[in-house]
Amino acid sequence: MTEVFETIASLRLRLETAGTVAFVPTMGALHDGHLALVRRAEGLADTVVVSIFVNPLQFGAGEDLERYPRDLDADLAVLPDEVIVFAPPVDELYPDGESETLISSGTVGSTFEGASRPGHFDGMLTVVAKLLNIVRPDVVVFGQKDAQQVFLVKRMVRDLNIPVVVDVVETVRNADGLALSSRNRFLGDDERVAALALSRALAAAAASSASRHEALLASHEVLNDESTVGVDYIELVDPATFEPVGDRYSGPVTAIVAARVGTTRLIDNRQFDLA
Amino acid sequence: MTEVFETIASLRLRLETAGTVAFVPTMGALHDGHLALVRRAEGLADTVVVSIFVNPLQFGAGEDLERYPRDLDADLAVLPDEVIVFAPPVDELYPDGESETLISSGTVGSTFEGASRPGHFDGMLTVVAKLLNIVRPDVVVFGQKDAQQVFLVKRMVRDLNIPVVVDVVETVRNADGLALSSRNRFLGDDERVAALALSRALAAAAASSASRHEALLASHEVLNDESTVGVDYIELVDPATFEPVGDRYSGPVTAIVAARVGTTRLIDNRQFDLA
Repeated sequence: MTEVFETIASLRLRLETAGTVAFVPTMGALHDGHLALVRRAEGLADTVVVSIFVNPLQFGAGEDLERYPRDLDADLAVLPDEVIVFAPPVDELYPDGESETLISSGTVGSTFEGASRPGHFDGMLTVVAKLLNIVRPDVVVFGQKDAQQVFLVKRMVRDLNIPVVVDVVETVRNADGLALSSRNRFLGDDERVAALALSRALAAAAASSASRHEALLASHEVLNDESTVGVDYIELVDPATFEPVGDRYSGPVTAIVAARVGTTRLIDNRQFDLA
Repeated sequence: MTEVFETIASLRLRLETAGTVAFVPTMGALHDGHLALVRRAEGLADTVVVSIFVNPLQFGAGEDLERYPRDLDADLAVLPDEVIVFAPPVDELYPDGESETLISSGTVGSTFEGASRPGHFDGMLTVVAKLLNIVRPDVVVFGQKDAQQVFLVKRMVRDLNIPVVVDVVETVRNADGLALSSRNRFLGDDERVAALALSRALAAAAASSASRHEALLASHEVLNDESTVGVDYIELVDPATFEPVGDRYSGPVTAIVAARVGTTRLIDNRQFDLA
């Protein structure tokens, strides 16, 4: 039986005898992508802690906070028995109904996902900082799927001297290339097919890696063919700064894309080198 | 001989065998007020760590960052031998020359000291969070002299679930009432006398505690008599929110004052009850 803790005090008490700890923060709605993080975590420490918490602070007005899937029993059913789960109610993490103190994600925090979702990354970093202070893990595991999140968490850990190692696991995909996401369940059959344009566009960019210009041209061609996909952004960023690279840049890039398929917003990314 | 550490790695290594830790963050220029914090810390844990770091992030453009007194040898001379000192160079805490990730101090962070010193409290909270992550103390000791700082640090610790106890020590004063401050050394003889108006104004407020209105009237009378003192603000705030109380409020208040005496900016505060 998986141990489930709902309070900070009870979790901290339990972790006093847990040895080294690897931590996987999630918003639940667990899929194979999350389970890949858990498996990685199991190889890294004596104890694995998985948090399941849909963080209201990182959802904006009009976003899908209410609609976001929540099913703790289903999540527990797919987790290994020996994992410790932290599933606090909202008022355990936000007893004052909000947090006046926030972690500010800086300029990168207001680009791309941050431009489409104002306040999202400040809310995300704030809850990650809280969870790291509660769990005090030796290592925390994130998925590369949320590339900008990974960049900002790593930078926060460095900037604030948080004593934790950040470990990143490759994006898990369906056989047809679609990146796993808790939001995929909202896709209708036709949308599910249309959504493949995201990973195809990233593959096209990687295959046309002579320059930023060529790569973006190739990916736009793929996306323009799919009339039901509304592109929010597609860009090549420098992994060291998360800023767009110039047209004469060569070296490692992360190609990032966000698009709306029907009413569902999806993101994906792919790392490669520009020649 | 006091042990002095300049790097995060060497300090962390030393603290692995330090038992419980009480931490006193300072900007150096140590006076009896700081030493009262150190004495308190000595009663609270096995090991006392004092940081000496003039944090550039909490100084604004045109403020006294360059002028702020720095004399490590003098500071070490007044500290007890058994204290562990952390005195990092600036680039040890800010290797990138700045911090993109910041702790945002919210609305209270832009009032009073925050209104006069934009960004001050975000910079202060950020370095305190960094130092707490580096030292990982059981208890951290602050002086009540910086009342708004104490309020914001306590709130950050609660909001971010930082696992530390915040202990607050009463303001240490000269016999004539002047609150000890590293900036007092900048006062000329006449300014030193004029500066007494701050503590006298707070005493007058406490003695006229029938209402906010009466208390502020009494304190303004004292300050208006001292022509060389330029008042920045004087207000009564609710200790639970750090917001100004209303004219019909009764209960505990913190009277806070900031004023310029010559070119030196001083602050002080006093806690009492409104009837």
